[in-house]
Amino acid sequence: MESVMTLFISNDDVQAAIDSKKLRLEPIIGAIEGAYSDLGADKAAYAPRRGVSVPVDDGHRHEDFEDEKFVFGVMEGAVQSTGYFAIRLKLDMTYRFDDPVTGAKTHEKYCIEPGRYCGLILLVDARTAEPLAFMNDGVVQHLRVAATNVLAAKHMAREDARVLGIYGSGGMARSHAQMMGYVRELGEIRVFSPTRAHREAFAAEMEDELRVPVRAVDSADLLPRDCDMLAACTDSRVPVVMPDAIRPGLFLTCVTANEVAREARDRIDAVVLHQTIESSTLRTYATGEGRIDPSGFIDPIVDPPNPVYSTGPKVRGTLAELVNGRIKGRLDRQESVFFYNNIGSGLQFAAIAGEVYRVLHDAPGLREIPTDWLTQSIRD
Amino acid sequence: MESVMTLFISNDDVQAAIDSKKLRLEPIIGAIEGAYSDLGADKAAYAPRRGVSVPVDDGHRHEDFEDEKFVFGVMEGAVQSTGYFAIRLKLDMTYRFDDPVTGAKTHEKYCIEPGRYCGLILLVDARTAEPLAFMNDGVVQHLRVAATNVLAAKHMAREDARVLGIYGSGGMARSHAQMMGYVRELGEIRVFSPTRAHREAFAAEMEDELRVPVRAVDSADLLPRDCDMLAACTDSRVPVVMPDAIRPGLFLTCVTANEVAREARDRIDAVVLHQTIESSTLRTYATGEGRIDPSGFIDPIVDPPNPVYSTGPKVRGTLAELVNGRIKGRLDRQESVFFYNNIGSGLQFAAIAGEVYRVLHDAPGLREIPTDWLTQSIRD
Repeated sequence: MESVMTLFISNDDVQAAIDSKKLRLEPIIGAIEGAYSDLGADKAAYAPRRGVSVPVDDGHRHEDFEDEKFVFGVMEGAVQSTGYFAIRLKLDMTYRFDDPVTGAKTHEKYCIEPGRYCGLILLVDARTAEPLAFMNDGVVQHLRVAATNVLAAKHMAREDARVLGIYGSGGMARSHAQMMGYVRELGEIRVFSPTRAHREAFAAEMEDELRVPVRAVDSADLLPRDCDMLAACTDSRVPVVMPDAIRPGLFLTCVTANEVAREARDRIDAVVLHQTIESSTLRTYATGEGRIDPSGFIDPIVDPPNPVYSTGPKVRGTLAELVNGRIKGRLDRQESVFFYNNIGSGLQFAAIAGEVYRVLHDAPGLREIPTDWLTQSIRD
Repeated sequence: MESVMTLFISNDDVQAAIDSKKLRLEPIIGAIEGAYSDLGADKAAYAPRRGVSVPVDDGHRHEDFEDEKFVFGVMEGAVQSTGYFAIRLKLDMTYRFDDPVTGAKTHEKYCIEPGRYCGLILLVDARTAEPLAFMNDGVVQHLRVAATNVLAAKHMAREDARVLGIYGSGGMARSHAQMMGYVRELGEIRVFSPTRAHREAFAAEMEDELRVPVRAVDSADLLPRDCDMLAACTDSRVPVVMPDAIRPGLFLTCVTANEVAREARDRIDAVVLHQTIESSTLRTYATGEGRIDPSGFIDPIVDPPNPVYSTGPKVRGTLAELVNGRIKGRLDRQESVFFYNNIGSGLQFAAIAGEVYRVLHDAPGLREIPTDWLTQSIRD
């Protein structure tokens, strides 16, 4: 067993594999589709993001960091058909920061020191329980969100959708621009972000890379005009998709909950959700860990989470139902439809990190440790 | 930052530190007490054990392993006063196995290969989010269960309790025997386990180590006689503590849910729980990850978990309430009281792994990796 090694795959490793076309985007979208196909067939399991946090105690708090605390976030998932399990951990110090120069009120985070972050994936072979690799989540994180939204577009956008509008010009915006062409034949991409230099650089680089006209527009209001698909790819704390953006036949998606104005949602005809809390397959173990019955005894928890959730008049269902044909993404050409990427899932990390590992695991030069550092002979 | 290292602390490292008295048991009990004191003062956070599982697909299942599946378990917690956060991960393949020779029906588990297991703790500095160490959980696991039960005994056993009876002779039994003397002046330890050689070896070794008379008894029925405290430390799937064991003034504890017969619980006067599902401080993030309201919009989840739980006539409350003096562990000398260690908590791992790290982190020869393998410059 000495020769079994657990890899450390960095963001640079993943990005270099994308740049060299060794890691291709189409199979990544396929990996996400396969995961949701498995989920619909009860061959996948996941838990939504959740976590715990504690404030820093008085003696150790930074003086100029208001409300400083440690925030831990975790999500996990497993896909039976590929045999991958992944858990994604986030370790953050967070604080409120009022910039004395600009007056901006922001929520900052860091790990160890400002500018450094910790988002870490542990990928496991779900057929042997072998810990296969630790992976930075920075690049994978963009891939999983974009691949999920693009998969939704495949099932929800008009077949002949040609013009994609993107709010934002960061990593999320890039991933969406790079992937959407695999599910629809793009004639043009339009981009808006508040900083002129950013949107123009994005347009120039993406046009060069994708060989599709990419146009930077000068105001958010101008972006939606003539777009068949809109993707909000921002970290804005105020809405960027306004009511006028919602027109007949539109496909809309987003990366955070804040990006679509409430009045804009009012105009949308139908919504498909990434998932719901209630649709989680998280399992709390049934044995000896139950609630207390009135007589003072412990009832084991035997009920799985409630698979039924309230959909409301506009919400058709979840991505797993969409991929498995149980709901329709679009009833006709005139419907405006919204894929609401409302909550992250460990299933996405199992799908994408699994594909990254499949392609990269035998690449030369990856960092590694003996797997027996992680295992033991003691049975708990 | 190049010089910041993340340690790998093995079971052997921890055991050697215990054996050499570098890592002492009394501060370990103190670390558990401090964690529950913090918890009662809203200065700690934790989530109970939970997980996901998927069966192995048809093409990859072992022929002779019935119902083979991957089972992932996770729990986490943070203690403000020491500034440690820990997450404990378990990666197991499990299957049902009917032994053709003995006829025994067991539930086996392994990681990678039979006899190898993966229970792994990641310890984090909750004041900087720095990943400090990975740690095998095998030794820590015994310490955290024993320290928790011994802490309960401190608050629930008679002040003059002198005789401790232990069901079982494995690692859990040893930890309980080794720690109980720090909270009560032991006059004698008695032990029963089904295999004569095991119980006699345990008695000989513990008597030698603890300098207290340790007597192996020849049947489970004989064990409780004259015992002031009883600790069930088995992995038995059938009850080992029977009704006759429950006598006035007894303190009883256990390590699994199955060990105390229902009829024995009927005789117990009062119960304190380790924790309840409802008393968890697990937080699901409030933003954009909510339930669907009837109009098709998403309601953020704003309510924290319900802190109220039904105690029933016998259940007084939880360990945190006990440690913080909100409930009494014992009303008088005649009460028979039961500390029901019903569910594991990540808080225990934060407490114990934190103490292990505090004592061991500058020991020579520990394995390590650069911490920057685990962090990144991309902000998700």
